[in-house]
Amino acid sequence: MKTAPTHRPPFARTIVTQIYNFSAGPAVLPKEVLQEAAADMLDWHGSGMSVMEMSHRGPEFISIYEAAVRDLRQLLDVPSNYKILFLQGGGLGENAIVPMNLVGRVSPSGQPATIDFVHTGSWSGKSVKEAARYATVNVAASSEGTRFTTVPPQSGWKLTPGAAYLHLCTNETIDGVEYNFVPELADGTPIVADMSSHILSRTIDVSKYGVIFAGAQKNIGPAGLTLVIVREDLLGHALPICPSAFDWSTVAAHDSMYNTPPTYGIYIAGLVFAHLLRQGGVAAAERRNIAKAELLYAALDADDFYQNRVAQDCRSRMNVPFYLRDETLNDTFLAGAKARGLLQLKGHKSVGGMRASIYNAMPIEGVQALVDYLNEFAGRT
Amino acid sequence: MKTAPTHRPPFARTIVTQIYNFSAGPAVLPKEVLQEAAADMLDWHGSGMSVMEMSHRGPEFISIYEAAVRDLRQLLDVPSNYKILFLQGGGLGENAIVPMNLVGRVSPSGQPATIDFVHTGSWSGKSVKEAARYATVNVAASSEGTRFTTVPPQSGWKLTPGAAYLHLCTNETIDGVEYNFVPELADGTPIVADMSSHILSRTIDVSKYGVIFAGAQKNIGPAGLTLVIVREDLLGHALPICPSAFDWSTVAAHDSMYNTPPTYGIYIAGLVFAHLLRQGGVAAAERRNIAKAELLYAALDADDFYQNRVAQDCRSRMNVPFYLRDETLNDTFLAGAKARGLLQLKGHKSVGGMRASIYNAMPIEGVQALVDYLNEFAGRT
Repeated sequence: MKTAPTHRPPFARTIVTQIYNFSAGPAVLPKEVLQEAAADMLDWHGSGMSVMEMSHRGPEFISIYEAAVRDLRQLLDVPSNYKILFLQGGGLGENAIVPMNLVGRVSPSGQPATIDFVHTGSWSGKSVKEAARYATVNVAASSEGTRFTTVPPQSGWKLTPGAAYLHLCTNETIDGVEYNFVPELADGTPIVADMSSHILSRTIDVSKYGVIFAGAQKNIGPAGLTLVIVREDLLGHALPICPSAFDWSTVAAHDSMYNTPPTYGIYIAGLVFAHLLRQGGVAAAERRNIAKAELLYAALDADDFYQNRVAQDCRSRMNVPFYLRDETLNDTFLAGAKARGLLQLKGHKSVGGMRASIYNAMPIEGVQALVDYLNEFAGRT
Repeated sequence: MKTAPTHRPPFARTIVTQIYNFSAGPAVLPKEVLQEAAADMLDWHGSGMSVMEMSHRGPEFISIYEAAVRDLRQLLDVPSNYKILFLQGGGLGENAIVPMNLVGRVSPSGQPATIDFVHTGSWSGKSVKEAARYATVNVAASSEGTRFTTVPPQSGWKLTPGAAYLHLCTNETIDGVEYNFVPELADGTPIVADMSSHILSRTIDVSKYGVIFAGAQKNIGPAGLTLVIVREDLLGHALPICPSAFDWSTVAAHDSMYNTPPTYGIYIAGLVFAHLLRQGGVAAAERRNIAKAELLYAALDADDFYQNRVAQDCRSRMNVPFYLRDETLNDTFLAGAKARGLLQLKGHKSVGGMRASIYNAMPIEGVQALVDYLNEFAGRT
């Protein structure tokens, strides 16, 4: 690794002609989706209503809902024995809703069930705390000792025989760590994956999971919508304390309309799904995401001016945390970025530094603009 | 009461120039709000971002949130010892979240708490079922015997000494029954009011309640946002099984940002609040709502062609269910209404008939258009 030249502020100001938003979520959406939403706002398809004004039980909204489910099923090739549910509560809510729905499956007589976790960062840590309200929790493996820079290899996981399920956060939004494998569990324990911050960014084999869930506000749509994909045989075991609005069986039996769903969020998600299909689906998105991530990590790795601390094979393609070698320059870096239209690059308060989230809707031109700025700020020629 | 003339179809077709949407929820929003949302969609106030794309922790969204809370506090004259919270889960979710937050206050040592309910229709019935997961439930009074056409007078309520709280649904959306009084409880038992379908439609004295909650999708904004107004001394008693995303104390301590809130819903709600202030606030809205309700009920009461079964002093100003004397005409009535741009008048499937929801955003011109149609369809001259 080369040593970077010393930073030489001030750097040239440019006129901002294009905004790129690197927020970790709520995050950038495809411009075409926002244009369509704006055009539809007062009158969806000649209905005389905004989508926000439609009864969730009317034919107009039902058609929106059905198209969204159909397109998502196609995008992720969801097998027919999996239900697609739209709920409320976000990723944090789901971290409690998952155990309320699943621990009853293995402890019908009331003895405490055990849930296994792999602790790879902030979000899997939160899931352990939430689940401890409903079951015995076992951290089968943790990368906390290396400050969450790796995914512990499966060979070292201390799994519990007969566990209710194994919980993974397959992309850690704050720590920038992403799984590059799907564990194989010999005893058939279901795998529950929190894919909030990388769903739809890469092809997955849904059949390897019992449950996949995701808050919408990264690659799907607006905050307030939560997606759950659940294998049908796992339904029907909710604890008595599970609110009916969050009982997956009840929600599934009513096509996500047992109570009023977040209709506008489902509508925007549907626009995102249709847009993604027009762009070639998830496989094409994955190719774009690999190119974007390679471009950005190469700029961070070019010398020691910047640092990403995650092991090479566990680096997230979606969330790229990095640190300036000289952290006294942080504010200057962020101000210069903002002046160039490169927004929301400040790292999460729990880890500091910087973070560039480069979700599906971030074009490679945005990553290139960031890379240009990284190079300029580092004084590279 | 006069006897109506026999109905004489077919009636004249008119060209639809104006849509009026009588949906019970999600429901009509002020046109000015939708216009502003459409204009902001790709670039909120020069930020270069849609509101949907903003980090909930950034200065842009924080300013949107703070304005919404400030305006709502002004609209309802919320005392300073009450917190205003934005959550997810809707009215049904809150029916479970309320007991999870409140029953621990009176049963710290684990003996079951009792919750009192007044059962005045479909929604208070649902609240009893949800609360039974967490406490002993006592139906202190019920109007089920008269098919939910009244609010039982307080003198007959069988309240429980030391109850955790008394739960009321102060406007029953399906049954069209609205409270015209606030009970006075001598022993200081907190009153919890589900105001989902009439909040902001009339002036209220918040200090008479311990908790007020409401799903947004009637008078506030889009589905997926839930409003909770809670007296501060009632915080801090959540059961261990309460998910942290729904623990009011946690949510309050983080200004509704412990997890990602439904940001776009909060934004739309803020536009609705600001619009309502410009229209003269809640007192002015109440005057408009009284005029609208009087106009509609007078047309229903003119003869026996239509029937509203709710006792005069308990009739809702927001949700007006009614039946045709000859129910074989229901489909003809609905088709004729739709042809005139009068949408979503079909009654809830559980009670049948018709229902006109005339929330804040329904102009009196819409009610007049419905009245004109009611008269025409009834063959009144």
